[in-house]
Amino acid sequence: MTRLVELEANGPRKLEPADIDDEKGDIAVCQCGLSDEFPFCDGSHRRTRDEDEGTTYVYADGERREVERVVTTDDADE
Amino acid sequence: MTRLVELEANGPRKLEPADIDDEKGDIAVCQCGLSDEFPFCDGSHRRTRDEDEGTTYVYADGERREVERVVTTDDADE
Repeated sequence: MTRLVELEANGPRKLEPADIDDEKGDIAVCQCGLSDEFPFCDGSHRRTRDEDEGTTYVYADGERREVERVVTTDDADE
Repeated sequence: MTRLVELEANGPRKLEPADIDDEKGDIAVCQCGLSDEFPFCDGSHRRTRDEDEGTTYVYADGERREVERVVTTDDADE
């Protein structure tokens, strides 16, 4: 029930009072990492609701796959 | 200059006006994915400042590694 997401920004987004949704009185910040409007929620977390405990996923091209391992360039066995 | 981060939450964090830092007048939301206080910024993005263009990284155990590829359980060649 975790997922690997690819992020690019290397600095925070500063939210100000004006960013709060006037009607709702709050603003939903993405924590699943899948939002197309990251760091804001776009409802994409619904795709994660049936993730299995103990499994790590990647989401790409509209599909979800289970991660076996991440290979890094310094892995001695590759 | 991207990185793979592992996220677990499967729902957004609702921020309200009370979450805004009174002194600063804003709140910094993490976009690098490395913050220990995710979804809030803790300054961890400073570690990403010297990432190379065109390279994807993983950060773990205080170290940074370059990602070669992500192997999924359905990869035919594994």
